[in-house]
Amino acid sequence: MRDVYVIGAGQTPFGSFPDRSYRDLFAEAYGATRDSVDSGIETDEIDEAVVATLGVGGRQLGLSGPAVTEHVGLHNVPCSRIENACGAGGFAVRQGVQAIKSGMADVVLAGGFEVMTDLSGDVTKYWLGVSGETEWERLTGTTFSGVYAQMASAYMEKHDATKEDLSRVAVKNHGNGAKNPKAHLGFECSLEDAVSAPAVADPLNLYHCCPTSDGAAAVLLASEDVVDEYTDERVRVAGTGAASERVGLAQRDSYTEISASSEAADRAYERAGIDPDDLDFAEVHDCFAIAELIAYEDLGFCDRGEAPRLLREGVTDPDGDLPVNTSGGLKSKGHPIGATGTGQVVEAFDQLTGRAGDRQLENPRYGLTHNVGGSGGAAAVHVFENEEVAQ
Amino acid sequence: MRDVYVIGAGQTPFGSFPDRSYRDLFAEAYGATRDSVDSGIETDEIDEAVVATLGVGGRQLGLSGPAVTEHVGLHNVPCSRIENACGAGGFAVRQGVQAIKSGMADVVLAGGFEVMTDLSGDVTKYWLGVSGETEWERLTGTTFSGVYAQMASAYMEKHDATKEDLSRVAVKNHGNGAKNPKAHLGFECSLEDAVSAPAVADPLNLYHCCPTSDGAAAVLLASEDVVDEYTDERVRVAGTGAASERVGLAQRDSYTEISASSEAADRAYERAGIDPDDLDFAEVHDCFAIAELIAYEDLGFCDRGEAPRLLREGVTDPDGDLPVNTSGGLKSKGHPIGATGTGQVVEAFDQLTGRAGDRQLENPRYGLTHNVGGSGGAAAVHVFENEEVAQ
Repeated sequence: MRDVYVIGAGQTPFGSFPDRSYRDLFAEAYGATRDSVDSGIETDEIDEAVVATLGVGGRQLGLSGPAVTEHVGLHNVPCSRIENACGAGGFAVRQGVQAIKSGMADVVLAGGFEVMTDLSGDVTKYWLGVSGETEWERLTGTTFSGVYAQMASAYMEKHDATKEDLSRVAVKNHGNGAKNPKAHLGFECSLEDAVSAPAVADPLNLYHCCPTSDGAAAVLLASEDVVDEYTDERVRVAGTGAASERVGLAQRDSYTEISASSEAADRAYERAGIDPDDLDFAEVHDCFAIAELIAYEDLGFCDRGEAPRLLREGVTDPDGDLPVNTSGGLKSKGHPIGATGTGQVVEAFDQLTGRAGDRQLENPRYGLTHNVGGSGGAAAVHVFENEEVAQ
Repeated sequence: MRDVYVIGAGQTPFGSFPDRSYRDLFAEAYGATRDSVDSGIETDEIDEAVVATLGVGGRQLGLSGPAVTEHVGLHNVPCSRIENACGAGGFAVRQGVQAIKSGMADVVLAGGFEVMTDLSGDVTKYWLGVSGETEWERLTGTTFSGVYAQMASAYMEKHDATKEDLSRVAVKNHGNGAKNPKAHLGFECSLEDAVSAPAVADPLNLYHCCPTSDGAAAVLLASEDVVDEYTDERVRVAGTGAASERVGLAQRDSYTEISASSEAADRAYERAGIDPDDLDFAEVHDCFAIAELIAYEDLGFCDRGEAPRLLREGVTDPDGDLPVNTSGGLKSKGHPIGATGTGQVVEAFDQLTGRAGDRQLENPRYGLTHNVGGSGGAAAVHVFENEEVAQ
């Protein structure tokens, strides 16, 4: 089947924009995405669109896809919304890849958005809760941070991990986010700040939880047959994988692994023909600090229980062997649910095309994105490659 | 790109089941679908799943896909929810087709569900309203039937159509639904019944509006490389097309046409290499009587303004040249939003494989399904072919 390339990717700043509409944010992200295409692209050259959103706030729960694509002048194309809670964006990119590989489209827009900060705290809590399981989690009073807190407790118990281990995720990601002008919380934090912050859901404290963000992000994908019309920088979707798992934590085999992530990663590596060792960087789903630790292990960056060591030794720092979340991750860059997965691809595209500014890595070839729905009910993993570095 | 086949399709009865859960309904539809596969299929032979639902009632708004596939034992496969209001099911089938054509899957489950009758009338009205445009329709007090009533008024004015013309849709579809054991409103009605029913949103009365239904329906798709393992009856997806349009009625060029439907149909016919004249039957989206009239014209069954004549002359009756909605359609069979589009494919599969019981048509070769989101913000059209009849 034919290859698929990222020809452009862009986003709004992630942050708190309670006075902006979801359509407005989507249009800004779309504009940034169009602008990022080297040789330019007209809206009428897009064959199809996929839109990711959870629909937080219930603004336009039906036809959420066409409601934003019409606003950017993208008419008549096939357009649908995809939802997989916080993992929707990763699946939107995957659906775009399938649309192109199927031969039914040559250029596809995969975008996502969410507006959350114009809601009261209780309403936001409801909407975050819908990413958990309903009957046995949300309706029994378990908050979404409470679900990840249970995973953190289990992990700390099993692997003798500490609050310092969790806190190193915040220190690293805030350090990265401080260099990202699009980050929601673009400031540095110290280990002491992170360890001593007030509790949210024990053992997770404020610095172990990502913020509630507004924003939008989009990606333009093109087939190998047309990619050269748009750019000379060939960022290939080398492999993509996805999987699902029980939505409710209590029904899973393990609290310290997310099988959807490891299955998705295995499939992406296999399709890309690479091992985790071949990666030059990764954007992983760090909605809570524990999620980044577990991601290292699910994605094969290290053995089970070794994630704290990677952080302690700086392996995933920007100057380490495998930089993780150079964008700042969900923790610092922000987490506007439907926009998160496509936002990860924006960072991968920027890194692979030398546009990452102060965060730029040296000549990376392979980058991975990892987007999780809920506490692991679904996951999508993509591997991107700069083909010029390969040569 | 390789061909895709329907190897099985099944559904629950559509009706009022306020005491049944969405998971339970989905499982019943999945069981019926599995049972319909001639040579049988095991759950672990399914590579991927797509689930359509609007999420009415807000039961599991996040991860709605994995929430039902896990319940039928379908673990670890890529699974996502697709939403396009009432058109979600048609798009789920389309996404399944793309997944297979992309080479990334050989067998895909496309299913849909909705539970609506356990809600109070006001809550149901809210949820139906979200399929309309939010700011200019729902929040200004326009009900969803009010949107279609405006289309009906415009059509009647433009083409001198009458309440009798609208009512003939109800008479025909109830006549068909009376022969469908899965229909929600499986009783006949007379022209007098239909014309004289109480008003819902003038000029639409009770018999011009489909019911609020619960139910689930699913389709199993397979690539040409594996289809023979599952069945000898080769029901091919000959063509599929989709399009979007402005979500809000007031922003469109016409109140009497749905451009998303005509665009989607043109693409489906072109891919199938056929004209509307080649069709032997069609399941069209008759959420309101006016929608069936407009569908005839959008889908090229007749010229603009000629739909009332088709009904008057019996062209779309079961013994006419082009039977439409032999299942009973949304009007009589029912309209459980996320299940409607896949439910249409159940009827197409049954007709093309001789399983349609008292509704069976004689040896059909081509059948079409037409599924609309909202008042036309999105539409998906599929053409199915029994390849044996072709030979």
